[in-house]
Amino acid sequence: MKHSRGFGSEPLISLLTDFGLKDPFVGEMKAIILSICPSARIVDITHEVEKFNIRSGSFLLAGAVRYFPSGTVHLAVVDPGVGSKRRPIVVQSPRSLFVGPDNGLLIPAAQAEGETRVFELKNRKLTLEEVSTTFHGRDIFAPAAAHLACGFPVNEVGPEITDYVKPCLLEPKYAGDSAKCEIVYVDSFGNLITNLPSTRLAEMNLHVGTRLRLTVGNRKVNARLVRTYSDLKKGEVGVLEGSHGFVEIAAYERSVARFLRARSSSTVRFYGVKAGR
Amino acid sequence: MKHSRGFGSEPLISLLTDFGLKDPFVGEMKAIILSICPSARIVDITHEVEKFNIRSGSFLLAGAVRYFPSGTVHLAVVDPGVGSKRRPIVVQSPRSLFVGPDNGLLIPAAQAEGETRVFELKNRKLTLEEVSTTFHGRDIFAPAAAHLACGFPVNEVGPEITDYVKPCLLEPKYAGDSAKCEIVYVDSFGNLITNLPSTRLAEMNLHVGTRLRLTVGNRKVNARLVRTYSDLKKGEVGVLEGSHGFVEIAAYERSVARFLRARSSSTVRFYGVKAGR
Amino acid sequence: MKHSRGFGSEPLISLLTDFGLKDPFVGEMKAIILSICPSARIVDITHEVEKFNIRSGSFLLAGAVRYFPSGTVHLAVVDPGVGSKRRPIVVQSPRSLFVGPDNGLLIPAAQAEGETRVFELKNRKLTLEEVSTTFHGRDIFAPAAAHLACGFPVNEVGPEITDYVKPCLLEPKYAGDSAKCEIVYVDSFGNLITNLPSTRLAEMNLHVGTRLRLTVGNRKVNARLVRTYSDLKKGEVGVLEGSHGFVEIAAYERSVARFLRARSSSTVRFYGVKAGR
Repeated sequence: MKHSRGFGSEPLISLLTDFGLKDPFVGEMKAIILSICPSARIVDITHEVEKFNIRSGSFLLAGAVRYFPSGTVHLAVVDPGVGSKRRPIVVQSPRSLFVGPDNGLLIPAAQAEGETRVFELKNRKLTLEEVSTTFHGRDIFAPAAAHLACGFPVNEVGPEITDYVKPCLLEPKYAGDSAKCEIVYVDSFGNLITNLPSTRLAEMNLHVGTRLRLTVGNRKVNARLVRTYSDLKKGEVGVLEGSHGFVEIAAYERSVARFLRARSSSTVRFYGVKAGR
Repeated sequence: MKHSRGFGSEPLISLLTDFGLKDPFVGEMKAIILSICPSARIVDITHEVEKFNIRSGSFLLAGAVRYFPSGTVHLAVVDPGVGSKRRPIVVQSPRSLFVGPDNGLLIPAAQAEGETRVFELKNRKLTLEEVSTTFHGRDIFAPAAAHLACGFPVNEVGPEITDYVKPCLLEPKYAGDSAKCEIVYVDSFGNLITNLPSTRLAEMNLHVGTRLRLTVGNRKVNARLVRTYSDLKKGEVGVLEGSHGFVEIAAYERSVARFLRARSSSTVRFYGVKAGR
Repeated sequence: MKHSRGFGSEPLISLLTDFGLKDPFVGEMKAIILSICPSARIVDITHEVEKFNIRSGSFLLAGAVRYFPSGTVHLAVVDPGVGSKRRPIVVQSPRSLFVGPDNGLLIPAAQAEGETRVFELKNRKLTLEEVSTTFHGRDIFAPAAAHLACGFPVNEVGPEITDYVKPCLLEPKYAGDSAKCEIVYVDSFGNLITNLPSTRLAEMNLHVGTRLRLTVGNRKVNARLVRTYSDLKKGEVGVLEGSHGFVEIAAYERSVARFLRARSSSTVRFYGVKAGR
């Protein structure tokens, strides 16, 4: 699907934060956005990123942006450094703009879309007149995203920079026929999403139906590679290609996270099957 | 109120799922919808249906659709069978379209609106090019709902079918002056919503002010039939006509579910009052 | 920022309730709103006000409305008295309309915007035909807000009244160089928001960098006045000017509420620093 809408006409803004929905923070950001750019459409990706977990937010953002039309402005705030010297930035990719803190959060999503340029958000025309020290989501990022969505030229937000914060990369390690990766996200069903690309499974000679061994933390687990959740039997642990291109661990209609006492950043080891074994 | 808007102009799409709001799933569905049908308005009914609980989702959907204008496309996903052979379907009622899995979820809401036709969703023009095995909400149902909302003709989605999955019906049983029903939903206030139609109360000679006995699970409870929550005194259990046409059990500014240790699918028995007693 | 949009054209409606997002209540209210006023834009402030806590809802509403454009209709429902004789009201301020129950919830937000007029919502043209006794959010307040947003004249909603319920005021007390206030809100980060205006800090000779004593409930706490969260060290308690103009208590990347076992309505005492000490 290609859906080019371009910035300025029928603008779309996505939001991803660790603010939760209990507090009025997200509502206030939306109020600011619609004050500045009344025609903007707003889509919440999630506001339940684990608090202060930049890596997790970064993973979720990078997985979600491909489903948005070209021309979307992505506003993301997981920002333990709010009010400090960390800079606000705008990242331009071939199909999107990203607005948020300079802490690595935005970079993987932007880079997945191609060549990027990063600008420091300095132009005071883009922020509220009064900027608090604790809520830049509302006072800096939301108004900037709204102005950009409504056509403000990205090259006027501030100077281009190259010393922006690079994300801490999450790369699996491969040794012989095994792969060591980690859990980057536990979804609300309790499924464990790893950072192992699904394409690796075939290379390890693991196919649908294969019984395999893995370790999650210190725990040895027998599992079966399945196509989808409902192929699992009660009590069985399954490995499958998740919906975002990464290997996932699941159980039949229950939380495998609770069953295996696993959580974000737990180490997972997969062992390949030797041909002829 | 009659508000006919028709499909195609100012389309409205409702969403009901068990995905929760922590994960990016709902945001991705909305991104797909707005990519395909940028003028669509989206209203969340709820994303907190108890996971895998088709019956509960079905009850909530059937209660909510009457408040939407004619011409709404209802997209509902509670789908333990995702990726299996269960079919995706589109249900047409006199005033709405329903998109979701063929597992009974959509049927009560659609049938409450009159005569229905059910189509298997087979036309690949309506889905994403790549369809995952674990997330049909994003890859099949959201794009189909968006295309339908923007005017795609329903009779081109696929063949009409009659062997769709019928919902497991929830019908109270009546014996003498008593009624045996069950709790179909516990709301966030802890109120217990039964499947006993409010109209039955008068037939059992129960009126506002009547003191009555009931059992919830194995527990005997003394209660009073009241008009509204604030008629209750502290510590008292009340029975009242809920806002969706079913009998509800409540307590004064506290969770009666916790107080009575009751939950969804607990059995409830009401005993009528004999005239002259 | 001044953004006058006026009622009727591109209307904006905000929602604040204690309904939560698990139940279909909020979705049904939105369905009603868009049935009556299809062009309305809806922004959720929050639906997670502590249940029945009018004071807390009132504080959050008063803090949020300033970020909405002029001409917004604010629909707020924290309503333990639903179905009783408490009246539904519409409050008119110089820049907004407020719709909700007559229990004090709306008044502080409206009065912060200047002179107000209060009308009893009596005109049955503004409500659904059938009004339940337990869900006025859907049956009275949502349709009224929608009609008002789409241009229904406010002076036709019902008679102007002056005997509306006044909010229970939350005012700090000052004695010598100390201030006694209370926690009015605990946000999802566990930060404690007090009702002490930030401007008071300077009057008590408390400045960024000052070490100060405070009590939270019965507990004595050593803290430091800081600019922002990231100025704090691990284990340290900080006092800072919150983003809504009130003094806030926080800790480094953890919940100070859990650490100090504090909660909404706990008493807080700040002690000023004598010059020359």
